[in-house]
Amino acid sequence: PRGVRVPRSYDGVLIRYGELSLKGPSVRRSFETKLVENISACLRREGIDFDIRRPRGRIVVETSEVEKSQDGIRRVFGVVSLSPIVVAEKDVESIKAAAVALALQRVRRGVSFAVRCNRADKSFPHTSQEVNAIVGAEIGKQTGGSVDLSNPEVTIGIDIRDRAYIFDRTIAGPGGLPLGTSGRVVTLLSGGIDSAVAAYMMMRRGCESVLVYMDNGRFGTDQMRERAIQVSRILGRYSCGSEMELLVVPHEHSLSSFIESCSRGLTCTLCKRMMVRVADAVAAGEGCEAIVNGSSLGQVCSQTMRNLVLTVKATERPVFLPLVGFDKEEIVRLAKKIGTYDASTAPAGSCTAVPARPLTAPTLDKVLTAERAVDLDDLVEKSLEGMERIRIS
Amino acid sequence: PRGVRVPRSYDGVLIRYGELSLKGPSVRRSFETKLVENISACLRREGIDFDIRRPRGRIVVETSEVEKSQDGIRRVFGVVSLSPIVVAEKDVESIKAAAVALALQRVRRGVSFAVRCNRADKSFPHTSQEVNAIVGAEIGKQTGGSVDLSNPEVTIGIDIRDRAYIFDRTIAGPGGLPLGTSGRVVTLLSGGIDSAVAAYMMMRRGCESVLVYMDNGRFGTDQMRERAIQVSRILGRYSCGSEMELLVVPHEHSLSSFIESCSRGLTCTLCKRMMVRVADAVAAGEGCEAIVNGSSLGQVCSQTMRNLVLTVKATERPVFLPLVGFDKEEIVRLAKKIGTYDASTAPAGSCTAVPARPLTAPTLDKVLTAERAVDLDDLVEKSLEGMERIRIS
Repeated sequence: PRGVRVPRSYDGVLIRYGELSLKGPSVRRSFETKLVENISACLRREGIDFDIRRPRGRIVVETSEVEKSQDGIRRVFGVVSLSPIVVAEKDVESIKAAAVALALQRVRRGVSFAVRCNRADKSFPHTSQEVNAIVGAEIGKQTGGSVDLSNPEVTIGIDIRDRAYIFDRTIAGPGGLPLGTSGRVVTLLSGGIDSAVAAYMMMRRGCESVLVYMDNGRFGTDQMRERAIQVSRILGRYSCGSEMELLVVPHEHSLSSFIESCSRGLTCTLCKRMMVRVADAVAAGEGCEAIVNGSSLGQVCSQTMRNLVLTVKATERPVFLPLVGFDKEEIVRLAKKIGTYDASTAPAGSCTAVPARPLTAPTLDKVLTAERAVDLDDLVEKSLEGMERIRIS
Repeated sequence: PRGVRVPRSYDGVLIRYGELSLKGPSVRRSFETKLVENISACLRREGIDFDIRRPRGRIVVETSEVEKSQDGIRRVFGVVSLSPIVVAEKDVESIKAAAVALALQRVRRGVSFAVRCNRADKSFPHTSQEVNAIVGAEIGKQTGGSVDLSNPEVTIGIDIRDRAYIFDRTIAGPGGLPLGTSGRVVTLLSGGIDSAVAAYMMMRRGCESVLVYMDNGRFGTDQMRERAIQVSRILGRYSCGSEMELLVVPHEHSLSSFIESCSRGLTCTLCKRMMVRVADAVAAGEGCEAIVNGSSLGQVCSQTMRNLVLTVKATERPVFLPLVGFDKEEIVRLAKKIGTYDASTAPAGSCTAVPARPLTAPTLDKVLTAERAVDLDDLVEKSLEGMERIRIS
């Protein structure tokens, strides 16, 4: 139709978010504000020019760099899904023209399609059904495609709000809550598969994370350290709107002390408890309320019920174990989805401080007695003194 | 072929288990023993006649009641997958006959199939490839179906161990570790969606669970209590090999005290802490090392970081939150898979003790001060006195 702008490419991105329906209005508003901030930070980080606005229930980014924007927004926690959009005026002719222009790129004779209108602005003079019928008829006429409402190859979505938004695809976001809305935690990150997933899950629930890698020195390898840095950088891509650091903390002296002074079967138990103690000291300095690690109940010797209990009880500060109930196979699947799997499985050797027979069920008494043979406070002190900070994002 | 038994139906079930590859030989052996015990308990509970044996790496159940057996075994933790099987002698003719008999039920002209042999007994005189070729040719001849190795409609599996096992389908089990291999926990079960999933996840990692339902009395409804019992019975179907009880514990007196004597905005925080304290007392009596609840960070007011920290810190005993990193949508998906969703969403009303404005970030000091206005030990004592036990499985 004459006088109506016919777009040749997308104008921006329509962003859907969720779970906020469980919140009261003021919490909801502050979450939405944080989500907009984080999306903006993400786009700025990528050097993208954009406008952002917040019609009720959605976020809209207008930009000429749609693909690059999508790539960033897909990693912003709180985003449930996104669609590249054409923006049209709120009249049937404009909507029709924009929808046909989009459809022409993918629908032709032999390709099925459906039009699905969501009329969030109830003052719009046509019902959703009417819009579907009008636009569907025009697309059929202009492309030769046929309507299939149950299983279409192409779905043209029309979302009528402050403006009309037209889209032909929907991309999943990571879900969760906006980063920065759930406090701060210290996450122990070995760089292996599990701890990376644990870190991700807490970030996804809105927690800012300080990552701590315990460097085993001569009991470990340089590759382990490198692996932790790589994994952190991948996690950093999900941390738009909040700075993230990896703290590399010496742990060799603690392992040496345990091997020299304590029953050898306890080394792993004592090591895990020391890691939590160091994380606790870091948490105190960084304003973090809790500690996170990637333990999964029963997976390995140091993760029996007794050893998890002993680990968690090493400090007053709560230790959250987001993977406690997971199977290894599920953790691997998540790691692949997040993108940390390849980095986490790069050859790095294994810890040589692990004894031939780690105890799976030492008593608390036995552990406390063993720990009296070393100076725990001094070991923590030495770890903090040797700590290095690496800026991740 | 003459002289070879041609089976008309399945002879039993082949059971695969996993994750034990991460264990040393003695742990592995005791896990396998427990798994066999649990499967046996499950079949006995259903009144099934069976023989069970343990060729290296698999468990085989022989029985005439295959379908009923499958239904039970599918809910035994530690089982990765199962297949109804035909058992054959370890010679090519017997294997061929059994495979053809199975194939004849599903393969015909126009249906594609593949044969996949796994020769666990390396002394068997033909390689897996040879078996595939011989059996595949015979199935093609007798059924008219065509071989498709990449995307077959029917796969005939042949597993050669102590005997030869032939199957045409594989059913997923729940995975995890055998119940009873990871200690005992007390799980707080409201009967809602989340706590049921949390209970399941810990059971799946091998934890025996004592379920505790806190009865809110006049602040709750009879339906809530009924819902908790229903949900427990569904969980009980997964607890073969270990008895399970639901403890119904009065909580009304605690809620009344908090409402009367403490700042109203703290009611939810104090309520959750009291639940953990009661769970702790139950744990001491029941020999449980940890407490479990279904909290998910940031989902509702009582699950902010601060409130979770305050909940977890109410006792010395560790509190595990297996859903801490989950989105609601994922929890719902799991509840549907487990089978608790419908029971958990039955109309039951909601707690009327929840204040208009629950505090989302009270300080520990404020909470401790509030708690000094009531007699915590006495409240726990009253809960234990009024506790009722319901046998679930």
